[in-house]
Amino acid sequence: MAKLPKALSRLIESLQRLPGVGPKSAARLAFYLLRTPKEFNHDLAAAVTELKDKVKMCRECFGVSEGELCGVCSDKNRDKSQLCVVERADDVLSLEAVEGYGGVYHVLGGVINPLDHIGPEDLKISELLDKIKKDEVVEVIIATNLTMEGEATALYIKKHIEQDFQLSKPNFQLKITRIGSGLPMGADLGFADRATLFRALEGRREL
Amino acid sequence: MAKLPKALSRLIESLQRLPGVGPKSAARLAFYLLRTPKEFNHDLAAAVTELKDKVKMCRECFGVSEGELCGVCSDKNRDKSQLCVVERADDVLSLEAVEGYGGVYHVLGGVINPLDHIGPEDLKISELLDKIKKDEVVEVIIATNLTMEGEATALYIKKHIEQDFQLSKPNFQLKITRIGSGLPMGADLGFADRATLFRALEGRREL
Repeated sequence: MAKLPKALSRLIESLQRLPGVGPKSAARLAFYLLRTPKEFNHDLAAAVTELKDKVKMCRECFGVSEGELCGVCSDKNRDKSQLCVVERADDVLSLEAVEGYGGVYHVLGGVINPLDHIGPEDLKISELLDKIKKDEVVEVIIATNLTMEGEATALYIKKHIEQDFQLSKPNFQLKITRIGSGLPMGADLGFADRATLFRALEGRREL
Repeated sequence: MAKLPKALSRLIESLQRLPGVGPKSAARLAFYLLRTPKEFNHDLAAAVTELKDKVKMCRECFGVSEGELCGVCSDKNRDKSQLCVVERADDVLSLEAVEGYGGVYHVLGGVINPLDHIGPEDLKISELLDKIKKDEVVEVIIATNLTMEGEATALYIKKHIEQDFQLSKPNFQLKITRIGSGLPMGADLGFADRATLFRALEGRREL
């Protein structure tokens, strides 16, 4: 195997550490970056470096923000009584792209995952419970991923909200929901796995 | 749609311009880079910036190199009588990974593509013809891609080598070959396209 110039193999190594970028894509990207105008490489490098300094965590929802509060939390038109709990800041982006949700968010910063030594105390769960007590939240939509860990975290949160609420506001009715699961749009029943089909049947709705 | 912090959307925009990176992957990468240690971002940025200054073009083969000559061209054990013509510097990397070729390379820097206004004069074709005349090349393996443009470029080069050779060395026998085409390893005949099957039949070999 021919020795690559050091600067090139160094970049390939760095790129390979990115998620979803294997050795072949990393090489392809690196060779592409050799052909791009110098300004593009400069801009990309500046954007990568700046990122950490300029992007802050929103004080309220723990999502990404430019200032103290993010765009959603500082928007007076958003309904603070509806709170959507997500794993990561990028999930807010995905849900916002739908443009069908008018409530606010709470970013946990991950999921409970004993194998990775991530417990409830590593996530923004106590902050979530405090927020529910403080703001007059009427509905908590738990939108963690439909993975084992996401499901377990959803159940954990549900249990703790209920425990807390029984103590602090025994007469108040708080709705705790989970985002719908079942077959994705465009899906073919023949290709769906059993767990998804089970959920789809369980979650059937009247037409 | 929630407004993203400027630093984040700027990075997403830059990443989206990379080949094979769509809006979703760009966002995923950017959010990943928010979570990586600061040193990683710094290293990546430095590698991207350094690239253009530190990686040179080999004087001989026009591939990537750290110095004047690349690893292959400076290797005295490589057989200079066998010359493999490729489109891009990364093709050298792919072929070197096979470890079955002992000759040298010549990087054209692209293919003839009238739609993109790339003519033979934009490629290292005259340099190739000069090299064939100068070094005692015995075989030219044309390994441009199996695309319309790659095929046309291969034919163009073949024609011009032959014309040149008839004038300069009428008695010398130069072998001009094209890399084999047909079904890729592991392929299923049922899924192969007609052009590939045609080539596979045409290129059949005795067992």
